[in-house]
Amino acid sequence: MERLNRENMTALDILNCHERIKPYIHNTTILTSRLIDKKIGANIFFKCENFQRAGAYKMRGATNAILQLTDEQKKNGVVTHSSGNFAQALSLAAQSIGVTAHIVMPNTAPEVKKVGVREYGGKIYECESTVVARQGLADEIAQRTGATFIHPSNDENVILGQGTAAIELLREHADLDFIFCPIGGGGLIAGSALAAEFFGNNCKVMGGEPFEADDAYRSLLSGKIEDNETVNTIADGLKTTLGDKNFPIIKEHVTKIIRVTEAEIIAAMRLVWERMKIIIEPSSAVALAALISEAEENPKLIKDKKVGVIISGGNVDLVKLPF
Amino acid sequence: MERLNRENMTALDILNCHERIKPYIHNTTILTSRLIDKKIGANIFFKCENFQRAGAYKMRGATNAILQLTDEQKKNGVVTHSSGNFAQALSLAAQSIGVTAHIVMPNTAPEVKKVGVREYGGKIYECESTVVARQGLADEIAQRTGATFIHPSNDENVILGQGTAAIELLREHADLDFIFCPIGGGGLIAGSALAAEFFGNNCKVMGGEPFEADDAYRSLLSGKIEDNETVNTIADGLKTTLGDKNFPIIKEHVTKIIRVTEAEIIAAMRLVWERMKIIIEPSSAVALAALISEAEENPKLIKDKKVGVIISGGNVDLVKLPF
Repeated sequence: MERLNRENMTALDILNCHERIKPYIHNTTILTSRLIDKKIGANIFFKCENFQRAGAYKMRGATNAILQLTDEQKKNGVVTHSSGNFAQALSLAAQSIGVTAHIVMPNTAPEVKKVGVREYGGKIYECESTVVARQGLADEIAQRTGATFIHPSNDENVILGQGTAAIELLREHADLDFIFCPIGGGGLIAGSALAAEFFGNNCKVMGGEPFEADDAYRSLLSGKIEDNETVNTIADGLKTTLGDKNFPIIKEHVTKIIRVTEAEIIAAMRLVWERMKIIIEPSSAVALAALISEAEENPKLIKDKKVGVIISGGNVDLVKLPF
Repeated sequence: MERLNRENMTALDILNCHERIKPYIHNTTILTSRLIDKKIGANIFFKCENFQRAGAYKMRGATNAILQLTDEQKKNGVVTHSSGNFAQALSLAAQSIGVTAHIVMPNTAPEVKKVGVREYGGKIYECESTVVARQGLADEIAQRTGATFIHPSNDENVILGQGTAAIELLREHADLDFIFCPIGGGGLIAGSALAAEFFGNNCKVMGGEPFEADDAYRSLLSGKIEDNETVNTIADGLKTTLGDKNFPIIKEHVTKIIRVTEAEIIAAMRLVWERMKIIIEPSSAVALAALISEAEENPKLIKDKKVGVIISGGNVDLVKLPF
């Protein structure tokens, strides 16, 4: 089968990746909620990457990408551009491994995010808030310092790392019928789809995406990578678009993408905060909102099934809550 | 030793209680945080009763109290007065066991609390917000229906039940040097103190209390139960006073009570929300605030020690946060 022979992205590659990053990551807890199970009519297993180091699954891919560098490359450090969770994750992964992290951030990034990066030892470089400015500055730093550029989602080593959360989920619940993930840049869902393909027992991977940033939904429809038309979403981690490394995996292995409204995202977020007593960020609530929506639209598909939901992160600005 | 012979409150009684309630409660997870450990300079184990059924440790004592009733008593139901977590816990415990719960609540109780009680099948009776009115109505209901009155904290079966959280903590971490609890009505700390005495290895129990509701601190000083002088605290679960069943246990077995300011409570709460990504209520933050205060005042006492902190609950009104 072609899909099992994808170079550098085999079942063994993802297992090796998992072993490689284990000393640096948490095997995060899997929580359940009787009340949410009853509401949805399914058995749901929440993989709590909000408890991951640096507060999000991004730590997995960032760690794997750095560990795959040569010693010479490690000496010269790494560089990325991100205003979100990958900036903190790459900083902490680099600090844990003993590597310098250069982080390009838009000058509009909230102070709380910059504080996080600094706390984990990342060096911040500010630029205009455009894709061209960010990539330009990252390229310039790479050239000047010899640092290796690591993309937050469109990188094979990052994708493999992000897939390890689904492996941990499947190791504890081998008979999951579905895994629901949010889709932003596409790294998490591509990695999860590979993990489900290699280690699941006919486990289907479903994506959740805001209507307000539905590039992946439209990309699957058109068969090519589409841009976002709007990004007016509270799910700040999902404003980015797919890349050429993860899109082919998503096209081949993701069963369906379900779009949700802002009101559905906020309601799902509040449900988890109030009933499960855990802090999840809006992007994570998108996966649960998609499951709730699907259970309403196609009740027979979801009824009494075993469903994994990846809670991608818990980095929320407590002074800007939507409640 | 006198303390091991306290009638109905022996090591075996608390173990039997634990076995009795196990089918009805969660053995809640114990979380750690490298960052908070580093900040305090100790190894801290958070017993997450915010993940307990009905969102608080109160489920333990409520369940034990109902299970200790005779079949005849169970038929006639139970009654309590509470505007807080015990109201929901007794309702859910009663529903789980198949018993009617009559709940007297002050007419000033927030709607969200009443919704919780109703959701768990409790019958609400409203009265004026005074101790006399509450107790009067509860007595009247007991007389009319034959229901057994169960006090939220000053009841031996409730105290034993609340002590089972500390047993679970000590089973996983037998060498804890300290357990920190909040003190409200005194049921949790009395039960925890018995558990530490019976099953700890020289494990000291320390109480946290708001300066704004410091009845337990002053009661230990004077040697008799003192009233609160003020209750202007965000820690709404800690406004009640000690009782004659739990005070003697606290006097004998609790090492120290540490008072904390409202600002310290809010800061501790925020630290846990932001760093551990879990939702804890202000009353729970009091225990951590007390530990932080003690680590600053007596660094040698706490430095490098193993410390259990009981996170008592996670029932927070999300539209009234102090951040």
